[in-house]
Amino acid sequence: MVNVKLVVQYDGTDFNGWQIQTGQPDSRTVQKELRQAVETIVKEPVTLLGAGRTDAGVHARGQVASFTTTKPIPEHCWPAALNSILPYDIRVISAREVSHDFHPQYCAEKKLYCYYILNSRYADVFFRRYSLHCPRPLDLEMMNKAAACFIGTHDFQAFCTSGSSVENFVRTVYQAEFLPLEGAVLSGGSHEGSLLRGRLLVFRISADGFLYKMVRSVLGTLLEVGYGKRSPQWVEEIIRSQDRCKAGPTAPSHGLFLEKVWYP
Amino acid sequence: MVNVKLVVQYDGTDFNGWQIQTGQPDSRTVQKELRQAVETIVKEPVTLLGAGRTDAGVHARGQVASFTTTKPIPEHCWPAALNSILPYDIRVISAREVSHDFHPQYCAEKKLYCYYILNSRYADVFFRRYSLHCPRPLDLEMMNKAAACFIGTHDFQAFCTSGSSVENFVRTVYQAEFLPLEGAVLSGGSHEGSLLRGRLLVFRISADGFLYKMVRSVLGTLLEVGYGKRSPQWVEEIIRSQDRCKAGPTAPSHGLFLEKVWYP
Repeated sequence: MVNVKLVVQYDGTDFNGWQIQTGQPDSRTVQKELRQAVETIVKEPVTLLGAGRTDAGVHARGQVASFTTTKPIPEHCWPAALNSILPYDIRVISAREVSHDFHPQYCAEKKLYCYYILNSRYADVFFRRYSLHCPRPLDLEMMNKAAACFIGTHDFQAFCTSGSSVENFVRTVYQAEFLPLEGAVLSGGSHEGSLLRGRLLVFRISADGFLYKMVRSVLGTLLEVGYGKRSPQWVEEIIRSQDRCKAGPTAPSHGLFLEKVWYP
Repeated sequence: MVNVKLVVQYDGTDFNGWQIQTGQPDSRTVQKELRQAVETIVKEPVTLLGAGRTDAGVHARGQVASFTTTKPIPEHCWPAALNSILPYDIRVISAREVSHDFHPQYCAEKKLYCYYILNSRYADVFFRRYSLHCPRPLDLEMMNKAAACFIGTHDFQAFCTSGSSVENFVRTVYQAEFLPLEGAVLSGGSHEGSLLRGRLLVFRISADGFLYKMVRSVLGTLLEVGYGKRSPQWVEEIIRSQDRCKAGPTAPSHGLFLEKVWYP
C-alpha cells in the first residue's frame, strides 16, 4: 500500500469545481476526472483527497491531491500515465510517494491564491477566461494599503460566505498584495495590436488556511477601495465587525487560481 | 458615405475561421459575427472586408476589417458600441474613418504573424488553446539558421497548400525568427507550481504577403530542423525546389496569431 501525492494544474472554466457532487452524476468535476484516471491505471477503487475544494470556475496551478493504492507504479511514471488519460484541461505536474499519514488538506501549512485583474478599457479575448476585466481605473496604492489590513492573525468571519460548516474563523494571513505584471506573454513583444494596453494585476494572498469563498470576498472588498468608493479604514472596520453583511461583493471565480500549497 | 477601418482581436478556437461560408449558414465565422454587429448598429446591409482570411482555429490580435456605411457614428464610439454586441471571443480595439479607396487586403503593405510554441515536457492547460505543445527538445539555434533562409524575395510555391487560386507565388519576407519569451504572465512570479518549466517560444514572420497556409507550412518545416531530423540546407533546397511535396507538414492552427497589418 502506498500513498501518492500529486501536484495538479487545471483550467476551471469547464468544471463544476473540484469536488465530486454526489447526487449529480453528470456534473463535471476535477476530482471525478482525476479519480477516474487513477482508477483506470490501478484497476481498483480509490479515494482521492484534495488540498482545497476550489469552486466552479476557479483554476489551479498547484492543487495537491493524494490517494492510496495497493498497485503502485514507479512514482516518476504517474504524470505521463495520468496525462495520457486525462482531458486537456487537467495536467498532473508531479507525483511523489509520501508517508501514510500525509493528508493534502490537513497537513497543509500554507496556501497561496492568486487573483488576476485586467485593468484596461476593453476586455482581452485571450485573458477573458483567466482574469477579471475591470474597465475603470483602479488605485493600486490604496488597494495595497487596504490589503495590508488582512495581514496577521484575525477572525475572518466577515469574509466567510454562509454555507460553510467551520466553527473557527481565525486564520493567519502572511501575504496580501497587488503586483503589476510586466511583459505579457502572448503579446510577442509587440503590444501595438494588443488590448493589453492596460495593466495586468495579480493579487497574491497566502495564509495558513482560507474560509469558504474568502479570497473572492476579500478581493471584492478591495475592489471597492480600488474604485475609490471606500477607504482602507473601512476594510479594517469590516474585519473587526466579524459581520458578513458589511463586506464587499464576492468577486467572480474566473480570475482566481490556487497557486501553491506548502507542507512541513 | 464613410469608410470605417477596424482593428479586431479574436480567439479563433471556436470559429470556423474568418470568412463567411456561403452555403453553410450554421458555420460560426468572425466575419459573420462582426458584420452582424455592424448591421445591428447601422441598420443597413454592409459588406465587411478583411485583411487576411485566417483559417479555422487561427487567432488574431491585429486583424484589420473595413466597411462603408451611410449611417456613421463618431469614430471613437465604434469600439464600445460593437463590443457591447459582439461575443466575448471578438473585441474591436480601435476604429478610424479612412479614405474611400482603403481596402484592408489590397492596401496592406506588410503583415506580421506570430506562432507560439510551448517546449516543455507536459502541456500547459492555460496555453493549450494558444500554443503548440512540443514535448521534445528543440534546437533553437538550428531553427533560426533555417528560418533565415526564408528572409528575402523568393518564390514560395513550395509553401503554398493546394486549394489557392493565386498565380504569383513570389513574396518578400522581412523577418523570420524564433525568440524565447521570458516571464510568463499568469504565473504570478512563482513558477514552482507551473508547467511553464519549459520554454515558451514565439516565431515571428513578417512579409509583404502570405500564401495559403504558408506560415503553418513554414513552421512545420522548421520544426523538422528543430527536432534534428533535417538541416537548414534542406530548407534552402525546398524553397528552391518550388515543390509542395518536399516541405514539412502543416503545423496546427491553434498556435498561430495574425499579429499586425501595416498600411502606407
